[in-house]
Amino acid sequence: MDKRFFIDKTCFIDVDFEKGAPAIGSIINLSQEEHMHFAKVLRGKIGDTIECFMDGSDIYECLVDDISKNRTVCHITKIIPCLCNPKLNVTLFQGLPKLDKLELITQKLCEIGASKIVPFLSNFTIAKDNPNKINRLDKIVVSACKQCGRTALLKVSDTVKFDKMCGMLEGYDLVIFASEKETSNTLFGTLLAHKGAKNIAYIIGSEGGFSPSEIETLSKISTSVTLGDRILRTETAAICVGFGIFCVLDN
Amino acid sequence: MDKRFFIDKTCFIDVDFEKGAPAIGSIINLSQEEHMHFAKVLRGKIGDTIECFMDGSDIYECLVDDISKNRTVCHITKIIPCLCNPKLNVTLFQGLPKLDKLELITQKLCEIGASKIVPFLSNFTIAKDNPNKINRLDKIVVSACKQCGRTALLKVSDTVKFDKMCGMLEGYDLVIFASEKETSNTLFGTLLAHKGAKNIAYIIGSEGGFSPSEIETLSKISTSVTLGDRILRTETAAICVGFGIFCVLDN
Repeated sequence: MDKRFFIDKTCFIDVDFEKGAPAIGSIINLSQEEHMHFAKVLRGKIGDTIECFMDGSDIYECLVDDISKNRTVCHITKIIPCLCNPKLNVTLFQGLPKLDKLELITQKLCEIGASKIVPFLSNFTIAKDNPNKINRLDKIVVSACKQCGRTALLKVSDTVKFDKMCGMLEGYDLVIFASEKETSNTLFGTLLAHKGAKNIAYIIGSEGGFSPSEIETLSKISTSVTLGDRILRTETAAICVGFGIFCVLDN
Repeated sequence: MDKRFFIDKTCFIDVDFEKGAPAIGSIINLSQEEHMHFAKVLRGKIGDTIECFMDGSDIYECLVDDISKNRTVCHITKIIPCLCNPKLNVTLFQGLPKLDKLELITQKLCEIGASKIVPFLSNFTIAKDNPNKINRLDKIVVSACKQCGRTALLKVSDTVKFDKMCGMLEGYDLVIFASEKETSNTLFGTLLAHKGAKNIAYIIGSEGGFSPSEIETLSKISTSVTLGDRILRTETAAICVGFGIFCVLDN
Protein backbone atom coordinates (compact mmCIF):
# COMPACT_ATOMS: atom_id res chain seq x y z
CA MET A 1 0.00 0.00 0.00
CA ASP A 2 2.78 2.38 0.90
CA LYS A 3 4.37 1.84 -2.48
CA ARG A 4 1.30 2.74 -4.59
CA PHE A 5 1.06 6.15 -6.20
CA PHE A 6 -1.80 7.85 -7.97
CA ILE A 7 -0.98 9.55 -11.27
CA ASP A 8 -2.84 11.18 -14.14
CA LYS A 9 -2.06 11.79 -17.80
CA THR A 10 -0.08 14.93 -17.02
CA CYS A 11 2.46 12.80 -15.15
CA PHE A 12 3.55 11.14 -18.41
CA ILE A 13 6.34 12.95 -20.15
CA ASP A 14 6.50 11.01 -23.39
CA VAL A 15 3.08 9.45 -23.96
CA ASP A 16 0.72 10.85 -26.57
CA PHE A 17 -2.62 9.53 -25.31
CA GLU A 18 -4.28 10.21 -28.63
CA LYS A 19 -1.94 7.73 -30.24
CA GLY A 20 -1.74 5.07 -27.57
CA ALA A 21 -1.61 3.99 -23.96
CA PRO A 22 1.43 3.96 -21.65
CA ALA A 23 3.81 1.10 -22.39
CA ILE A 24 6.86 -0.49 -20.88
CA GLY A 25 9.54 2.19 -20.83
CA SER A 26 7.10 5.14 -20.57
CA ILE A 27 8.43 7.78 -18.20
CA ILE A 28 6.38 9.07 -15.26
CA ASN A 29 6.91 12.22 -13.22
CA LEU A 30 5.10 11.83 -9.88
CA SER A 31 2.86 14.73 -8.87
CA GLN A 32 4.27 17.12 -6.29
CA GLU A 33 2.17 15.53 -3.56
CA GLU A 34 3.09 11.94 -4.39
CA HIS A 35 6.73 12.96 -4.86
CA MET A 36 6.77 14.45 -1.34
CA HIS A 37 5.14 11.33 0.04
CA PHE A 38 7.61 9.02 -1.69
CA ALA A 39 10.79 11.01 -1.14
CA LYS A 40 10.15 12.60 2.28
CA VAL A 41 7.64 10.47 4.17
CA LEU A 42 8.69 7.04 2.88
CA ARG A 43 12.32 8.06 2.28
CA GLY A 44 12.25 6.38 -1.10
CA LYS A 45 15.47 5.86 -3.05
CA ILE A 46 16.64 5.65 -6.65
CA GLY A 47 16.30 2.02 -7.75
CA ASP A 48 13.15 1.40 -5.68
CA THR A 49 10.24 -0.40 -7.30
CA ILE A 50 6.89 1.36 -6.95
CA GLU A 51 3.39 0.91 -8.35
CA CYS A 52 1.60 3.72 -10.15
CA PHE A 53 -2.00 3.82 -11.37
CA MET A 54 -4.37 6.19 -13.14
CA ASP A 55 -8.13 6.21 -12.60
CA GLY A 56 -9.28 2.81 -13.89
CA SER A 57 -5.92 1.86 -15.41
CA ASP A 58 -3.77 -1.23 -15.16
CA ILE A 59 -1.11 -1.19 -12.46
CA TYR A 60 2.21 0.16 -13.70
CA GLU A 61 5.17 -1.34 -11.93
CA CYS A 62 7.93 1.24 -12.13
CA LEU A 63 11.61 1.66 -11.36
CA VAL A 64 12.63 4.97 -9.80
CA ASP A 65 15.31 6.63 -11.97
CA ASP A 66 15.77 9.99 -10.31
CA ILE A 67 14.80 11.87 -7.17
CA SER A 68 15.55 15.57 -6.83
CA LYS A 69 14.21 18.21 -4.50
CA ASN A 70 11.09 18.78 -6.53
CA ARG A 71 10.46 15.61 -8.44
CA THR A 72 10.57 11.85 -8.61
CA VAL A 73 10.99 10.29 -12.05
CA CYS A 74 10.43 6.62 -12.84
CA HIS A 75 9.71 4.40 -15.83
CA ILE A 76 7.32 1.52 -16.37
CA THR A 77 8.94 -1.93 -16.16
CA LYS A 78 5.80 -4.07 -16.07
CA ILE A 79 2.07 -3.62 -16.72
CA ILE A 80 -0.20 -5.69 -14.48
CA PRO A 81 -3.98 -5.91 -14.98
CA CYS A 82 -5.91 -4.68 -11.96
CA LEU A 83 -8.18 -7.50 -10.70
CA CYS A 84 -9.68 -5.46 -7.87
CA ASN A 85 -11.93 -3.10 -9.83
CA PRO A 86 -15.66 -3.53 -9.12
CA LYS A 87 -17.64 -5.79 -11.47
CA LEU A 88 -20.93 -4.29 -10.31
CA ASN A 89 -21.90 -0.68 -10.86
CA VAL A 90 -23.26 0.47 -7.50
CA THR A 91 -24.34 4.02 -6.70
CA LEU A 92 -25.26 5.26 -3.24
CA PHE A 93 -27.72 8.14 -3.04
CA GLN A 94 -26.95 9.41 0.46
CA GLY A 95 -28.97 11.97 2.40
CA LEU A 96 -26.28 14.50 3.32
CA PRO A 97 -24.85 13.55 6.71
CA LYS A 98 -22.31 15.41 8.84
CA LEU A 99 -18.93 15.59 7.12
CA ASP A 100 -17.11 13.09 9.35
CA LYS A 101 -19.78 10.53 8.55
CA LEU A 102 -19.60 11.24 4.82
CA GLU A 103 -15.85 10.73 5.06
CA LEU A 104 -16.33 7.38 6.77
CA ILE A 105 -18.93 6.32 4.19
CA THR A 106 -16.64 7.36 1.33
CA GLN A 107 -13.68 5.40 2.66
CA LYS A 108 -15.69 2.27 3.40
CA LEU A 109 -17.66 2.28 0.13
CA CYS A 110 -14.42 2.60 -1.80
CA GLU A 111 -13.15 -0.58 -0.13
CA ILE A 112 -16.48 -2.35 -0.57
CA GLY A 113 -16.59 -1.55 -4.28
CA ALA A 114 -19.15 1.19 -4.94
CA SER A 115 -18.69 3.33 -8.05
CA LYS A 116 -20.42 6.55 -7.06
CA ILE A 117 -21.88 8.49 -4.15
CA VAL A 118 -24.47 11.20 -4.77
CA PRO A 119 -25.21 13.22 -1.60
CA PHE A 120 -28.65 14.84 -1.58
CA LEU A 121 -30.62 17.33 0.48
CA SER A 122 -34.09 16.40 1.73
CA ASN A 123 -36.65 18.05 4.01
CA PHE A 124 -35.12 16.78 7.25
CA THR A 125 -31.46 17.15 6.34
CA ILE A 126 -29.61 18.66 9.29
CA ALA A 127 -26.04 18.85 7.98
CA LYS A 128 -24.84 21.89 6.07
CA ASP A 129 -23.37 21.32 2.63
CA ASN A 130 -19.69 22.20 2.41
CA PRO A 131 -18.65 22.67 -1.22
CA ASN A 132 -15.00 22.22 -0.20
CA LYS A 133 -15.71 18.69 0.91
CA ILE A 134 -15.12 17.19 -2.54
CA ASN A 135 -11.40 17.89 -2.43
CA ARG A 136 -11.15 16.25 0.98
CA LEU A 137 -13.24 13.27 -0.10
CA ASP A 138 -11.18 12.82 -3.27
CA LYS A 139 -8.08 12.39 -1.13
CA ILE A 140 -9.85 9.81 1.00
CA VAL A 141 -10.83 7.95 -2.19
CA VAL A 142 -7.27 7.86 -3.55
CA SER A 143 -5.95 6.66 -0.22
CA ALA A 144 -8.64 3.97 0.05
CA CYS A 145 -7.92 2.81 -3.53
CA LYS A 146 -4.25 2.38 -2.67
CA GLN A 147 -5.21 0.37 0.38
CA CYS A 148 -7.84 -1.93 -1.12
CA GLY A 149 -6.18 -2.45 -4.50
CA ARG A 150 -8.66 -0.95 -6.96
CA THR A 151 -7.54 1.61 -9.52
CA ALA A 152 -11.01 2.85 -10.59
CA LEU A 153 -11.78 5.80 -8.34
CA LEU A 154 -15.07 6.07 -6.50
CA LYS A 155 -16.74 9.29 -7.65
CA VAL A 156 -18.40 11.61 -5.15
CA SER A 157 -20.69 14.00 -6.99
CA ASP A 158 -21.90 17.43 -5.98
CA THR A 159 -24.83 17.54 -3.59
CA VAL A 160 -28.21 17.60 -5.35
CA LYS A 161 -31.73 18.36 -4.19
CA PHE A 162 -34.25 15.59 -3.47
CA ASP A 163 -36.28 16.14 -6.63
CA LYS A 164 -33.21 16.05 -8.83
CA MET A 165 -32.06 12.89 -7.07
CA CYS A 166 -35.37 11.20 -7.86
CA GLY A 167 -34.84 12.01 -11.53
CA MET A 168 -31.45 10.27 -11.43
CA LEU A 169 -32.85 6.88 -10.46
CA GLU A 170 -33.71 5.73 -13.96
CA GLY A 171 -31.65 3.19 -15.88
CA TYR A 172 -30.70 0.96 -12.95
CA ASP A 173 -31.54 -2.76 -12.79
CA LEU A 174 -32.56 -2.27 -9.18
CA VAL A 175 -33.13 0.74 -6.92
CA ILE A 176 -33.23 -0.08 -3.21
CA PHE A 177 -34.66 2.28 -0.61
CA ALA A 178 -33.79 1.54 3.02
CA SER A 179 -37.02 2.50 4.77
CA GLU A 180 -37.86 2.39 8.47
CA LYS A 181 -41.52 2.06 7.49
CA GLU A 182 -40.97 -1.17 5.54
CA THR A 183 -41.66 -4.25 7.63
CA SER A 184 -41.86 -7.25 5.31
CA ASN A 185 -39.53 -6.78 2.35
CA THR A 186 -35.97 -7.64 3.42
CA LEU A 187 -32.73 -6.53 1.78
CA PHE A 188 -31.73 -10.16 1.40
CA GLY A 189 -34.98 -11.21 -0.26
CA THR A 190 -34.84 -8.25 -2.62
CA LEU A 191 -31.27 -8.96 -3.65
CA LEU A 192 -31.98 -12.67 -4.15
CA ALA A 193 -34.90 -11.76 -6.42
CA HIS A 194 -32.54 -9.67 -8.54
CA LYS A 195 -29.64 -12.05 -9.11
CA GLY A 196 -27.90 -10.92 -12.27
CA ALA A 197 -28.47 -7.21 -11.61
CA LYS A 198 -25.33 -5.27 -12.47
CA ASN A 199 -26.41 -1.63 -12.15
CA ILE A 200 -27.74 -1.05 -8.67
CA ALA A 201 -28.65 2.15 -6.83
CA TYR A 202 -29.59 2.46 -3.17
CA ILE A 203 -30.99 5.31 -1.17
CA ILE A 204 -30.12 6.02 2.47
CA GLY A 205 -31.69 8.90 4.39
CA SER A 206 -29.68 11.41 6.41
CA GLU A 207 -29.73 11.50 10.23
CA GLY A 208 -33.12 13.24 10.11
CA GLY A 209 -34.74 10.61 7.90
CA PHE A 210 -37.43 11.39 5.33
CA SER A 211 -40.70 13.30 5.45
CA PRO A 212 -43.91 11.29 4.80
CA SER A 213 -44.27 12.79 1.32
CA GLU A 214 -40.68 11.92 0.44
CA ILE A 215 -41.25 8.35 1.62
CA GLU A 216 -44.35 8.17 -0.58
CA THR A 217 -42.40 9.45 -3.58
CA LEU A 218 -39.51 7.06 -3.04
CA SER A 219 -41.81 4.09 -2.50
CA LYS A 220 -43.21 4.58 -5.98
CA ILE A 221 -39.88 4.68 -7.80
CA SER A 222 -37.83 2.19 -5.80
CA THR A 223 -38.02 -1.06 -3.82
CA SER A 224 -38.41 -0.39 -0.10
CA VAL A 225 -36.53 -2.76 2.19
CA THR A 226 -36.15 -3.16 5.93
CA LEU A 227 -32.66 -3.53 7.37
CA GLY A 228 -33.82 -5.55 10.35
CA ASP A 229 -35.06 -5.07 13.89
CA ARG A 230 -32.71 -2.31 14.96
CA ILE A 231 -32.40 1.28 13.77
CA LEU A 232 -29.06 1.74 12.02
CA ARG A 233 -27.30 5.08 11.99
CA THR A 234 -27.16 6.59 8.50
CA GLU A 235 -23.48 5.77 7.98
CA THR A 236 -23.95 2.23 9.25
CA ALA A 237 -26.82 1.67 6.83
CA ALA A 238 -24.83 3.10 3.92
CA ILE A 239 -21.87 0.81 4.60
CA CYS A 240 -23.89 -2.30 5.39
CA VAL A 241 -26.26 -2.16 2.42
CA GLY A 242 -23.30 -1.49 0.13
CA PHE A 243 -21.60 -4.62 1.40
CA GLY A 244 -24.84 -6.59 1.29
CA ILE A 245 -25.21 -5.83 -2.41
CA PHE A 246 -21.70 -7.08 -3.22
CA CYS A 247 -22.06 -10.04 -0.86
CA VAL A 248 -25.17 -11.37 -2.62
CA LEU A 249 -24.82 -10.15 -6.23
CA ASP A 250 -21.07 -10.17 -6.93
CA ASN A 251 -20.61 -13.92 -7.23
CA MET B 1 -33.15 8.10 21.86
CA ASP B 2 -32.62 11.15 24.02
CA LYS B 3 -35.27 9.96 26.39
CA ARG B 4 -33.82 6.47 27.04
CA PHE B 5 -31.89 5.79 30.21
CA PHE B 6 -29.82 2.79 31.22
CA ILE B 7 -30.42 1.48 34.74
CA ASP B 8 -29.42 -1.54 36.82
CA LYS B 9 -30.92 -3.33 39.79
CA THR B 10 -29.39 -0.86 42.26
CA CYS B 11 -31.55 1.88 40.73
CA PHE B 12 -34.71 0.22 42.07
CA ILE B 13 -35.65 1.36 45.55
CA ASP B 14 -38.50 -1.01 46.32
CA VAL B 15 -37.98 -4.10 44.16
CA ASP B 16 -36.76 -7.35 45.73
CA PHE B 17 -35.37 -9.14 42.69
CA GLU B 18 -35.34 -12.45 44.51
CA LYS B 19 -39.08 -12.23 44.84
CA GLY B 20 -40.01 -10.74 41.47
CA ALA B 21 -39.37 -8.40 38.57
CA PRO B 22 -40.10 -4.68 38.41
CA ALA B 23 -43.80 -3.90 37.94
CA ILE B 24 -45.99 -0.94 37.20
CA GLY B 25 -45.50 1.45 40.10
CA SER B 26 -41.92 0.36 40.89
CA ILE B 27 -39.75 3.34 41.78
CA ILE B 28 -36.47 4.03 39.95
CA ASN B 29 -33.62 6.29 41.02
CA LEU B 30 -31.54 7.16 37.95
CA SER B 31 -27.78 6.68 38.33
CA GLN B 32 -25.75 9.82 38.95
CA GLU B 33 -24.60 9.88 35.33
CA GLU B 34 -28.06 9.41 33.82
CA HIS B 35 -29.52 11.88 36.31
CA MET B 36 -27.02 14.51 35.16
CA HIS B 37 -27.80 13.75 31.54
CA PHE B 38 -31.54 14.02 32.08
CA ALA B 39 -31.60 17.00 34.42
CA LYS B 40 -28.70 19.09 33.11
CA VAL B 41 -28.08 18.19 29.46
CA LEU B 42 -31.67 17.52 28.40
CA ARG B 43 -33.17 19.92 30.97
CA GLY B 44 -35.76 17.31 31.90
CA LYS B 45 -38.71 18.26 34.09
CA ILE B 46 -41.00 16.67 36.67
CA GLY B 47 -43.90 15.11 34.77
CA ASP B 48 -41.75 14.09 31.76
CA THR B 49 -42.14 10.60 30.33
CA ILE B 50 -38.88 8.71 29.89
CA GLU B 51 -37.86 5.16 28.99
CA CYS B 52 -35.58 3.11 31.23
CA PHE B 53 -34.03 -0.29 30.54
CA MET B 54 -31.77 -2.81 32.22
CA ASP B 55 -29.47 -5.15 30.30
CA GLY B 56 -31.84 -7.39 28.35
CA SER B 57 -35.00 -6.14 30.07
CA ASP B 58 -38.32 -4.92 28.75
CA ILE B 59 -38.62 -1.18 28.23
CA TYR B 60 -39.97 0.61 31.29
CA GLU B 61 -41.96 3.68 30.43
CA CYS B 62 -41.68 5.97 33.46
CA LEU B 63 -43.10 9.21 34.80
CA VAL B 64 -40.61 11.54 36.46
CA ASP B 65 -41.77 12.30 40.03
CA ASP B 66 -38.91 14.29 41.47
CA ILE B 67 -35.70 16.00 40.39
CA SER B 68 -33.29 17.36 42.97
CA LYS B 69 -29.67 18.41 42.72
CA ASN B 70 -28.38 14.87 43.04
CA ARG B 71 -31.14 12.62 41.85
CA THR B 72 -33.98 11.96 39.47
CA VAL B 73 -36.78 9.72 40.74
CA CYS B 74 -39.45 8.17 38.53
CA HIS B 75 -41.92 5.30 38.60
CA ILE B 76 -42.92 2.74 35.99
CA THR B 77 -46.21 3.48 34.23
CA LYS B 78 -46.01 0.91 31.44
CA ILE B 79 -43.90 -2.13 30.57
CA ILE B 80 -43.23 -2.63 26.85
CA PRO B 81 -41.53 -5.73 25.42
CA CYS B 82 -38.30 -4.90 23.56
CA LEU B 83 -38.60 -6.15 19.97
CA CYS B 84 -35.11 -5.02 18.95
CA ASN B 85 -32.98 -7.56 20.79
CA PRO B 86 -30.96 -9.86 18.50
CA LYS B 87 -32.49 -13.23 17.62
CA LEU B 88 -29.12 -14.60 16.54
CA ASN B 89 -26.19 -15.08 18.89
CA VAL B 90 -23.22 -13.64 17.02
CA THR B 91 -19.71 -13.32 18.44
CA LEU B 92 -16.87 -11.48 16.76
CA PHE B 93 -13.34 -12.65 17.53
CA GLN B 94 -11.38 -9.56 16.56
CA GLY B 95 -7.60 -9.31 16.23
CA LEU B 96 -6.86 -6.33 18.48
CA PRO B 97 -6.92 -3.16 16.35
CA LYS B 98 -6.09 0.40 17.36
CA LEU B 99 -8.50 1.74 19.95
CA ASP B 100 -10.40 4.13 17.68
CA LYS B 101 -11.13 1.24 15.33
CA LEU B 102 -12.26 -1.01 18.17
CA GLU B 103 -14.58 1.79 19.24
CA LEU B 104 -16.04 2.04 15.75
CA ILE B 105 -16.47 -1.74 15.55
CA THR B 106 -18.16 -1.82 18.95
CA GLN B 107 -20.65 0.90 18.07
CA LYS B 108 -21.50 -0.58 14.69
CA LEU B 109 -21.79 -4.19 15.87
CA CYS B 110 -24.13 -3.07 18.61
CA GLU B 111 -26.44 -1.55 16.00
CA ILE B 112 -26.08 -4.55 13.70
CA GLY B 113 -26.99 -6.99 16.47
CA ALA B 114 -23.87 -8.85 17.63
CA SER B 115 -23.86 -10.23 21.17
CA LYS B 116 -20.18 -10.31 22.00
CA ILE B 117 -16.75 -9.10 20.89
CA VAL B 118 -13.62 -10.96 22.00
CA PRO B 119 -10.44 -9.06 21.10
CA PHE B 120 -7.37 -11.26 20.72
CA LEU B 121 -3.62 -10.92 20.30
CA SER B 122 -1.87 -12.76 17.45
CA ASN B 123 1.67 -12.80 16.10
CA PHE B 124 1.27 -9.75 13.89
CA THR B 125 -0.86 -7.64 16.23
CA ILE B 126 0.47 -4.08 16.18
CA ALA B 127 -1.90 -2.32 18.62
CA LYS B 128 -1.13 -2.25 22.32
CA ASP B 129 -3.79 -3.57 24.67
CA ASN B 130 -5.25 -0.89 26.93
CA PRO B 131 -7.00 -2.49 29.92
CA ASN B 132 -8.90 0.77 30.53
CA LYS B 133 -10.61 0.41 27.18
CA ILE B 134 -13.46 -1.70 28.55
CA ASN B 135 -14.94 1.19 30.52
CA ARG B 136 -14.86 3.36 27.42
CA LEU B 137 -16.33 0.65 25.21
CA ASP B 138 -19.10 -0.06 27.72
CA LYS B 139 -20.22 3.56 27.42
CA ILE B 140 -20.24 3.28 23.64
CA VAL B 141 -22.38 0.14 23.95
CA VAL B 142 -24.95 1.80 26.21
CA SER B 143 -25.16 4.79 23.91
CA ALA B 144 -25.53 2.57 20.82
CA CYS B 145 -28.25 0.52 22.55
CA LYS B 146 -30.22 3.68 23.27
CA GLN B 147 -29.88 4.70 19.64
CA CYS B 148 -30.74 1.41 17.93
CA GLY B 149 -33.43 0.27 20.35
CA ARG B 150 -32.01 -2.94 21.83
CA THR B 151 -31.84 -3.41 25.58
CA ALA B 152 -29.48 -6.42 25.62
CA LEU B 153 -25.98 -5.01 25.89
CA LEU B 154 -23.23 -6.13 23.56
CA LYS B 155 -20.43 -7.59 25.74
CA VAL B 156 -16.81 -6.74 25.03
CA SER B 157 -14.58 -9.25 26.82
CA ASP B 158 -11.01 -8.88 28.00
CA THR B 159 -8.34 -9.40 25.36
CA VAL B 160 -7.18 -13.03 25.09
CA LYS B 161 -4.21 -14.67 23.40
CA PHE B 162 -4.55 -16.45 20.05
CA ASP B 163 -4.36 -19.97 21.53
CA LYS B 164 -7.01 -19.23 24.10
CA MET B 165 -9.21 -17.73 21.39
CA CYS B 166 -8.95 -20.93 19.35
CA GLY B 167 -10.18 -22.87 22.37
CA MET B 168 -13.25 -20.63 22.58
CA LEU B 169 -14.56 -21.55 19.11
CA GLU B 170 -16.37 -24.71 20.15
CA GLY B 171 -20.13 -24.90 20.49
CA TYR B 172 -21.05 -22.61 17.60
CA ASP B 173 -23.23 -23.72 14.67
CA LEU B 174 -20.82 -21.96 12.34
CA VAL B 175 -17.37 -20.38 12.72
CA ILE B 176 -16.37 -18.10 9.85
CA PHE B 177 -12.80 -17.03 9.23
CA ALA B 178 -12.29 -14.08 6.86
CA SER B 179 -9.10 -15.11 5.09
CA GLU B 180 -7.18 -13.26 2.38
CA LYS B 181 -5.83 -16.63 1.23
CA GLU B 182 -9.28 -18.05 0.49
CA THR B 183 -10.28 -17.65 -3.16
CA SER B 184 -13.32 -19.83 -3.81
CA ASN B 185 -15.47 -20.06 -0.68
CA THR B 186 -17.60 -16.89 -0.43
CA LEU B 187 -19.24 -15.46 2.67
CA PHE B 188 -22.60 -15.57 0.90
CA GLY B 189 -22.27 -19.21 -0.13
CA THR B 190 -21.18 -20.21 3.35
CA LEU B 191 -24.08 -18.43 5.00
CA LEU B 192 -26.59 -19.87 2.52
CA ALA B 193 -25.27 -23.36 3.30
CA HIS B 194 -25.94 -22.73 7.00
CA LYS B 195 -29.49 -21.39 6.96
CA GLY B 196 -30.93 -22.06 10.40
CA ALA B 197 -27.66 -21.43 12.24
CA LYS B 198 -28.33 -19.41 15.39
CA ASN B 199 -24.95 -19.38 17.16
CA ILE B 200 -22.35 -17.92 14.85
CA ALA B 201 -18.78 -16.83 15.47
CA TYR B 202 -16.50 -15.03 13.06
CA ILE B 203 -12.82 -14.23 13.12
CA ILE B 204 -11.27 -11.07 11.71
CA GLY B 205 -7.53 -10.45 11.81
CA SER B 206 -5.97 -7.24 13.09
CA GLU B 207 -4.28 -4.70 10.78
CA GLY B 208 -1.21 -6.96 10.61
CA GLY B 209 -3.15 -10.05 9.52
CA PHE B 210 -2.19 -13.58 10.51
CA SER B 211 1.04 -15.58 10.34
CA PRO B 212 1.07 -18.66 8.06
CA SER B 213 0.90 -21.00 11.07
CA GLU B 214 -2.06 -19.11 12.51
CA ILE B 215 -3.85 -19.33 9.16
CA GLU B 216 -3.20 -23.07 9.10
CA THR B 217 -4.58 -23.46 12.62
CA LEU B 218 -7.69 -21.40 11.89
CA SER B 219 -8.37 -23.18 8.61
CA LYS B 220 -8.70 -26.45 10.51
CA ILE B 221 -11.20 -25.23 13.08
CA SER B 222 -13.29 -22.81 11.03
CA THR B 223 -14.72 -22.16 7.57
CA SER B 224 -12.47 -19.83 5.56
CA VAL B 225 -14.26 -17.33 3.36
CA THR B 226 -13.20 -14.61 0.94
CA LEU B 227 -14.78 -11.17 1.28
CA GLY B 228 -14.37 -10.37 -2.41
CA ASP B 229 -11.87 -8.82 -4.78
CA ARG B 230 -10.72 -5.94 -2.61
CA ILE B 231 -8.77 -5.94 0.65
CA LEU B 232 -10.99 -4.61 3.42
CA ARG B 233 -9.54 -2.82 6.43
CA THR B 234 -9.97 -4.80 9.63
CA GLU B 235 -12.79 -2.61 10.95
CA THR B 236 -14.58 -2.66 7.58
CA ALA B 237 -14.41 -6.46 7.51
CA ALA B 238 -15.69 -6.73 11.10
CA ILE B 239 -18.68 -4.49 10.39
CA CYS B 240 -19.50 -5.93 6.97
CA VAL B 241 -19.33 -9.62 7.91
CA GLY B 242 -21.44 -8.91 11.00
CA PHE B 243 -24.10 -7.32 8.83
CA GLY B 244 -23.81 -10.07 6.22
CA ILE B 245 -24.61 -12.68 8.87
CA PHE B 246 -27.75 -10.88 9.99
CA CYS B 247 -28.73 -10.04 6.41
CA VAL B 248 -28.73 -13.70 5.31
CA LEU B 249 -29.54 -15.66 8.48
CA ASP B 250 -31.89 -13.40 10.47
CA ASN B 251 -35.00 -13.91 8.37
